[in-house]
Amino acid sequence: SFNQFRGYFRMDINKLNHLSTKILSSRSMASKTPVGFIGLGNMGTPMAKNLLRNGYPVIATDVFPESCKELQDTGAQVVDSPAEVAEKADRIITMLPSSPNVIEVYTGPNGILKKVKKGTLLIDSSTIDPAVSKEMAVAAEKMGAVFMDAPVSGGVGAASLAKLTFMVGGVEEEYHAAQELLTCMGANVVYCGQVGTGQAAKICNNMLLAIGMIGTAETMNLGIRLGLDPKLLAKILNMSSGRCWSSDTYNPVPGVMEGVPSANNYQGGFGTTLMAKDLGLAQNTATNTKTPVPLGSLAHQIYRVMCSRGYANKDFSSVFQFLREEEGQ
Amino acid sequence: SFNQFRGYFRMDINKLNHLSTKILSSRSMASKTPVGFIGLGNMGTPMAKNLLRNGYPVIATDVFPESCKELQDTGAQVVDSPAEVAEKADRIITMLPSSPNVIEVYTGPNGILKKVKKGTLLIDSSTIDPAVSKEMAVAAEKMGAVFMDAPVSGGVGAASLAKLTFMVGGVEEEYHAAQELLTCMGANVVYCGQVGTGQAAKICNNMLLAIGMIGTAETMNLGIRLGLDPKLLAKILNMSSGRCWSSDTYNPVPGVMEGVPSANNYQGGFGTTLMAKDLGLAQNTATNTKTPVPLGSLAHQIYRVMCSRGYANKDFSSVFQFLREEEGQ
Amino acid sequence: SFNQFRGYFRMDINKLNHLSTKILSSRSMASKTPVGFIGLGNMGTPMAKNLLRNGYPVIATDVFPESCKELQDTGAQVVDSPAEVAEKADRIITMLPSSPNVIEVYTGPNGILKKVKKGTLLIDSSTIDPAVSKEMAVAAEKMGAVFMDAPVSGGVGAASLAKLTFMVGGVEEEYHAAQELLTCMGANVVYCGQVGTGQAAKICNNMLLAIGMIGTAETMNLGIRLGLDPKLLAKILNMSSGRCWSSDTYNPVPGVMEGVPSANNYQGGFGTTLMAKDLGLAQNTATNTKTPVPLGSLAHQIYRVMCSRGYANKDFSSVFQFLREEEGQ
Amino acid sequence: SFNQFRGYFRMDINKLNHLSTKILSSRSMASKTPVGFIGLGNMGTPMAKNLLRNGYPVIATDVFPESCKELQDTGAQVVDSPAEVAEKADRIITMLPSSPNVIEVYTGPNGILKKVKKGTLLIDSSTIDPAVSKEMAVAAEKMGAVFMDAPVSGGVGAASLAKLTFMVGGVEEEYHAAQELLTCMGANVVYCGQVGTGQAAKICNNMLLAIGMIGTAETMNLGIRLGLDPKLLAKILNMSSGRCWSSDTYNPVPGVMEGVPSANNYQGGFGTTLMAKDLGLAQNTATNTKTPVPLGSLAHQIYRVMCSRGYANKDFSSVFQFLREEEGQ
Repeated sequence: SFNQFRGYFRMDINKLNHLSTKILSSRSMASKTPVGFIGLGNMGTPMAKNLLRNGYPVIATDVFPESCKELQDTGAQVVDSPAEVAEKADRIITMLPSSPNVIEVYTGPNGILKKVKKGTLLIDSSTIDPAVSKEMAVAAEKMGAVFMDAPVSGGVGAASLAKLTFMVGGVEEEYHAAQELLTCMGANVVYCGQVGTGQAAKICNNMLLAIGMIGTAETMNLGIRLGLDPKLLAKILNMSSGRCWSSDTYNPVPGVMEGVPSANNYQGGFGTTLMAKDLGLAQNTATNTKTPVPLGSLAHQIYRVMCSRGYANKDFSSVFQFLREEEGQ
Repeated sequence: SFNQFRGYFRMDINKLNHLSTKILSSRSMASKTPVGFIGLGNMGTPMAKNLLRNGYPVIATDVFPESCKELQDTGAQVVDSPAEVAEKADRIITMLPSSPNVIEVYTGPNGILKKVKKGTLLIDSSTIDPAVSKEMAVAAEKMGAVFMDAPVSGGVGAASLAKLTFMVGGVEEEYHAAQELLTCMGANVVYCGQVGTGQAAKICNNMLLAIGMIGTAETMNLGIRLGLDPKLLAKILNMSSGRCWSSDTYNPVPGVMEGVPSANNYQGGFGTTLMAKDLGLAQNTATNTKTPVPLGSLAHQIYRVMCSRGYANKDFSSVFQFLREEEGQ
Repeated sequence: SFNQFRGYFRMDINKLNHLSTKILSSRSMASKTPVGFIGLGNMGTPMAKNLLRNGYPVIATDVFPESCKELQDTGAQVVDSPAEVAEKADRIITMLPSSPNVIEVYTGPNGILKKVKKGTLLIDSSTIDPAVSKEMAVAAEKMGAVFMDAPVSGGVGAASLAKLTFMVGGVEEEYHAAQELLTCMGANVVYCGQVGTGQAAKICNNMLLAIGMIGTAETMNLGIRLGLDPKLLAKILNMSSGRCWSSDTYNPVPGVMEGVPSANNYQGGFGTTLMAKDLGLAQNTATNTKTPVPLGSLAHQIYRVMCSRGYANKDFSSVFQFLREEEGQ
Repeated sequence: SFNQFRGYFRMDINKLNHLSTKILSSRSMASKTPVGFIGLGNMGTPMAKNLLRNGYPVIATDVFPESCKELQDTGAQVVDSPAEVAEKADRIITMLPSSPNVIEVYTGPNGILKKVKKGTLLIDSSTIDPAVSKEMAVAAEKMGAVFMDAPVSGGVGAASLAKLTFMVGGVEEEYHAAQELLTCMGANVVYCGQVGTGQAAKICNNMLLAIGMIGTAETMNLGIRLGLDPKLLAKILNMSSGRCWSSDTYNPVPGVMEGVPSANNYQGGFGTTLMAKDLGLAQNTATNTKTPVPLGSLAHQIYRVMCSRGYANKDFSSVFQFLREEEGQ
C-alpha cells in the first residue's frame, strides 16, 4: 500500500538542492558511535533498522517487549528505559505516537532527561504539538542537551526504503549533526527554522492537503452532478486555477487516475484516522495561537465525522465517497 | 491590472492540443456573414471589437445607448432590440451580467426568440446558472435554433487581447461553428459536453479555486504564527502535497511572490465581489442538485462577509489580510 | 407521528392575541361561495376537507386523478385544470411541492392566471422561495387578482385536525379575507407583512431551528463525552443561556425526554429531507440577497450529507446519532 | 455593565431547588477557620472580599503586589506564595486566567501541592480545560488533598454582588464542604458530577450559547433583508421552534429589546474575546476527545476572526453587526 502513497509528501529532489543535502558518508563503520532509538512501532522499527544498516550501533527501548525483541534480533542493544538509553548514547532519536508519550519519554521518572549527558543531540520524529516540542527543547537545554523536532512525511513503506522526508526544527548549528543521521532514514531533509517549525511545516502542509482534498471531492462531485465527465473535469481543473495536488496527483474520484487509492476502493494510502489526528494538531495549534482557520477547522470536523461513520481506515480521499449521494437518493 | 491576473484561468496551450483547436481561418472577409452581439459592457465591447477586427460585420445592441455608440464608432451596426438582432444575424453572441438578463434577452417581449431564424446559432458567454442555460436551450430548440453556453475565464484585459478561455457546452455537431467565432476572441476554447457544462466547468473551477485560496491563506497565516518564514513555507508546500495554484502561482502573502495582487496591496486581479458571485452560483447549483459542498459553502460565506467588511473591490487573495490578526492583538 | 411533532412550530395562543384572531364565523353555509383548491397531496387533501367541513363548496384539481377521486368522494367538485378552477371560484388556495409547480400552476398554459377573474383572492400555502411568491404577486396583479403567500407549520396530523399555523404575507387589506379561510384549516394565523414575508418567516424560523438542533446535538454529545449525565446537562442548559427549543422541548438525546422522536428511534417528527429542503430555500434566499449565513449554510450541508447517509426519513433530531461516535471507536 | 449581563448565565432559582441548596449557616464567625485565596484579579478580588464579609479569615496571594495590597487593606493576610497559603489554610480557592496558571499555582516549585496539608479542600474556580482539572485532582489526591473544579458564570458585577453561579465537579462527599464557601460568593451552586464536569458544563453551555447567538444574528439579518420587521420576526421566532436564549432574552438586533448590549452599541455584557477563549476550550476538549462539533467549531472561528477585526471588546452579540451588510453595499 505504501507504493500508492509514496507521493503523499514527496518532494522533487531537484527542487530541494538548496534546501537539503544528501550526505554520502565515507566514514568507516568502526568510527560510528552508538545512536539511541526510543519508540519501536510500525515506523520506528524500520527507521532504527536503517540506522543499523548504515553501520550505527543502536541502543533501543520500547514499552512493548516484542518490538524490542525484533530489533534485538537485527543487532540492536535493548535496554530497559529511556534513561538508560541516555546513559549510553549521546545521539537519540524518538518516534512516538503522541504528545503525552513524548512528555513521558523525555521528562518522566525514567525519562531521557533524568540521565542525559551534556551535549547530547535529541531528535524527536514524532508528530506532535509544536508547543510540546518547544517545552522539550527548554527542558533539554536545562540539562545541557540539544532538542530538535524532525517529524516525517511518508508511511511505513517509505520508512522501510529510507525514503522519508524529514522537516527539521532546531538550532541551526546542530542541523548538520542531525542531518547525518536523518539521511540514513530518509530521502529528503528540510531545515525549517527554530524548534517547533518542523512540526509546524508538517501540520501546515497536511491541513492544506486536507482542505484541497475535500475541496476536490466536492468539486468533482458537483461537476459530475452537473453533467461533466469526471476525467474531462479533472483535466480542465488541472490546467486551470483550480489545480491542486489532490486534483492532479491523487484524484479522489474512481476512474480518473490509476495507482491511487481511489482506484483501489480507497485502500492503502493515508488513513482518515491519521488525517483526523493531524488536523486535530493543526486545530490545537491554531486555537492556542488564536489563529483563525475556518476551512481547516471544518476539514477537521468532516474527517472526524468520517472516522465515526466507517471511514476510519480508508484513505483520506474517500471523502469523495462520503459526500456522494447514495444510489437512489 | 489584467496582467496580474492573466494567469487566473490560464491553460497551458500544449496541454490543450487534444481539447481545442485554434482555427487559422483563411476565408476572405468578403465571405463573412454578420454576427449579432448583445451586451456591450466591459467585457462585451472588447469582445465585439475583436469580431470586427477579424472581419465579421457586427449587428449589436445594448440597453445603454452610450455603449452602443462606442461600438457603432468602431463599425458595428446598432439596432434597437435583441429581436431585431435576431432578424438580421444567424449567429448571435450574448454577454450579460446575470441570469435574469439572459432570460429577458432571450425570452422577453423583444427577445431574440421572438424573431430568431431557424438554424440560428446562439452563443451565451454570460456566467450564469447552468439550469438557466438549459432552459434557454430548450426554448431555442422550440424555435429551431441552437443554443450553446460558453462562459469565459479572464478579465477585461484578456478580452481586449483576445486571450480569453471559453468553456463550451452544447450539441457537439455545432461546436465547430461556435469555435470559429470564439477563437477570434479567445486563446483557448474547450468543449465540455452538453448544454450547461460550460457553466458547470467554470463554476467548479472557481469553487475549488476559492477553497484553495482561503486554505492557502489560513495555512500561510498559521505557519507564520508558528514561526515559519513565509517564503520557506511556500517552498515546502509547493514541493509537497499541500501544493495548489493559490500557493504556487498566486500566493496571497505579501512578499512571497512578485507580480501578483498580494505584492500590490491586493489591487487588480479578480475582485472579491466577483468571486462571491461565482460562489453564489456554485452554491445555487449545489443546492438545486442536492449536492453537499461544505467547504465550497463556507468559502462562499467568507467571501460574502468580506464583501461587507471593505474587501469588495480587492483581489480575492486579500482573504489572507482579512483572516490575519490585527496589529496589537 | 404527528403527535410527536405537533409542537414543532407550535405557538402559544395567548401570546398570539395581538397578532392573530380566530374568527368564529356565524354565517350560514348557504351564503358561502365556492373555494378553489389546487394541489391534493398529503397536506392539501386534509386541508381541502376542512374547508368542506366548514361548509365551503370546493372546486378542486390535481395532476393525480386518484387524489381528485378521494376529494370528489368527500363532496368536492373536480375539474381538469387550474384555469378551470379560476373560472369557477374567486378564492383559490394552492398547496404544491415546490417553486416550479407553483410557477406552472399560476402562469402555465392551463394556469390560474389564464382565466382568473378580477378581484380573485389567491392564497399559496406551498413553502417556496419568497422571490417566486413576489413574482406570482406581480403576475396576479396584472390580471387584477390578489396573491398572498401563506406557508404552514405543522405536518399531516395538524392539517387533518385543522391545527396548522399559517404565516401570511400580502396586502394588509386582504388579510382578513384570507384569514376567514385559513382559520378553517389552522389554529393560528400570523400576519407577517408584504408578499413573501410569510415564506420569509417560515424559512427564518426553520433555519434557526436547524442551527439550534445541530448545536444541541453537538453540545449534548460533547458533554456526555466529558462525563456529564445527559439529563443533568439538559437541565443545566435549560436553566442557562444555552437554552433553546431543541434543548428544552425536543431534546435529541434518547432518554432525556419522553414523547419526542429521540425517544422513538427518531421516527415521526420532521424528516431530515424536509429540513434539508427548507434549508436549501434559506440558502437560496440568502445567496440571492447576498446575506451571509455561515451557520445556516453549514447546517444545510450537514442535513444534506445526512440525506445521503441513510437519515433521509428520520426525524431531523437524528443529527445527534449522526454525529455520535460509533461503538468501538 | 454587569447589570446588562447579569442574565447571561442566570438560573431560575425556583427551578434549582433540587439541584442546589443555599446554606444559611448559623455558625458564629469566631468558629471560622481561615480560607486561602489565590488569584486576585477582577473576579478574584471581589470573591475574596465576599468571603471576608461572611466572616472567613482569608490568607491570600497573587503575582501582582498591588492586587495583594487592595485585599490586605480589606483585612486579608497576604503571604508570598501558593505554598505558603497551603501551609496556613486547609480550604483554598483559586481563580486564575488559564490552564498554565493553574498548573503553575498547583504543581509549580512554590505551588500549593508542595506544602498542602492532608485533607485540604482545593476549589478551582478558573475556567480551564477539564483535562487539566483532572490532572490537578490526581496530583492533589497523591498528597492526600481533595480537588474540585467550580467555574463560575456571571461577570465582575455578579462577583461583587455574590450572585455568581458555580458549576461544581468533584467527589460528591466533599460537595457540601465546597458549597459552604461557594454560597458566600454566589447565588447558585450546581453539582455536576466527577472532577472536570463543572468545567464541562460551563464549556458546553457557552458553546451552545455562541451557536445560538450567531444563528440568531444570521436569522434576524436574513429576515430583515427579506422584508420582515425585526420585532415581529423576534416575536414569531420566540413563539416557535426557533426560540432560544439569544432570540428571547438577549436579542442581538438593536431596537428589538431594551437593557441588553445590542441596545447600547454592544458595550458591556460578555466580550467577544472571552467568548472566543471559552470556544477555544470547547474546541480543545472536543479535539482531544475526538468529538465532532462542526457548528461549535465554526462559531469559534467566527469569534476568532471578529477578535481580529475590531470586535474584541464588544459584547458577543455584536456578531449581528459583524455579519450585516455595510451601508451602500
